[in-house]
Amino acid sequence: MTKTGKLYVVGIGPGSYEDMTVRAINVLKECELIVGYTVYIDLIRDHFPDKETLTTPMRQEKQRCQMALDEAKKGKTVAMVCSGDSGVYGMSGLILELSDDEVEIEMVPGVTAALSGGALLGAPLGHDFAIISLSDLLTPMELIEDRLRMSAKADMVICLYNPSSKKRSDYLKKACEIVLEYRDPETVCGIARNVGRSEEEMSVLSLETLKDTSVDMFTTVYMGNSMTKEIHGNMVTPRGYRNE
Amino acid sequence: MTKTGKLYVVGIGPGSYEDMTVRAINVLKECELIVGYTVYIDLIRDHFPDKETLTTPMRQEKQRCQMALDEAKKGKTVAMVCSGDSGVYGMSGLILELSDDEVEIEMVPGVTAALSGGALLGAPLGHDFAIISLSDLLTPMELIEDRLRMSAKADMVICLYNPSSKKRSDYLKKACEIVLEYRDPETVCGIARNVGRSEEEMSVLSLETLKDTSVDMFTTVYMGNSMTKEIHGNMVTPRGYRNE
Repeated sequence: MTKTGKLYVVGIGPGSYEDMTVRAINVLKECELIVGYTVYIDLIRDHFPDKETLTTPMRQEKQRCQMALDEAKKGKTVAMVCSGDSGVYGMSGLILELSDDEVEIEMVPGVTAALSGGALLGAPLGHDFAIISLSDLLTPMELIEDRLRMSAKADMVICLYNPSSKKRSDYLKKACEIVLEYRDPETVCGIARNVGRSEEEMSVLSLETLKDTSVDMFTTVYMGNSMTKEIHGNMVTPRGYRNE
Repeated sequence: MTKTGKLYVVGIGPGSYEDMTVRAINVLKECELIVGYTVYIDLIRDHFPDKETLTTPMRQEKQRCQMALDEAKKGKTVAMVCSGDSGVYGMSGLILELSDDEVEIEMVPGVTAALSGGALLGAPLGHDFAIISLSDLLTPMELIEDRLRMSAKADMVICLYNPSSKKRSDYLKKACEIVLEYRDPETVCGIARNVGRSEEEMSVLSLETLKDTSVDMFTTVYMGNSMTKEIHGNMVTPRGYRNE
């Protein structure tokens, strides 16, 4: 079947030009239209100044994806941008769910928040880990709690996305309480905030302290496993349990 | 304290120049010495032809890290390269464990195999997931099995690193058997191989079929959750359990 246009789903990383891949930059240079959430388009607009853009506000993911597909169907080369990676809580899945196979679709991976925040903290993800979103918009809270419990039980490092919002200010506290059932209060944890932007910051703290820390939606949270340690102010999870 | 040199730990992504970040490329251009495992150095050498390099064979991670630190202590700007991300089963942690705070250390994140393989498969990691290595060199097999079991129980997508080697040819089969205790044999799974290289390939298959598939060390394996589906030959995990 002849495809009518091309749609790239592009992970732009944490937000800085430097953390984009060459592939992502080339796609954005060469496409005819960039579609995305207003905030992400603003992050990259200066680097692709002459490019036509289409933006939609937060939460309108479905409309945004449909818009990108419709433009590609007209024969355009379209790039849909996502923060971090295109697939991890990104738009890739929704695009594929809405597509009818008329448009050629290609995913361009990017540096997801777990990795960019991890680099800032040192090496929190040196061994097996789980990435869990605390947003219960599309997922029942009981299942999120179950995932926290199982990951804690199996001594996996846990990286939390969407640890807070206006409506969910106590979710991180609840998550810490669940993990504290299985882990020492002194377990080394970390938070990374505004990674890749001028105000980026990180801190290393105990699980007990994390429980009473308030974070915002620009923060990624890391809960260490039994081997995680603090080294020169960094959060470090060794690659295993045995010494070489 | 005055630091004597600078050491960057750089994630180079799956292996192609296009999948490196601008930051990684800039560091490799500007550093005085690149240190790494022979295979990774070979992947990038053509793009940085005049650069001094130091290589060590596989398994000599500790020596490689010490070598990089020693060179930085002489006052050099050194880049230590890792495939994928610098932190996910990478060298960042070992570097921090071996460092004595004399050398300034900076981590440069990169596109880890879960993401590059995920982009090839479509959107396997659209919701909460666990990354688990099947290598039992440094981790007891019982703990690895426990992690598989708990992740399967909590309906998380599972991404397997190091799914096979000469000594561990039946580990993937064992992993599938554990996950099959909790998931339907028809659960949508995927494998991605040689991502970012000329021979890259992917396939989408059932958990039952995956159990009897043999893979090599250049393969990343994805086990879907109860919501994962196949769409136009892609592996897609929706972002949640509720329809918007």
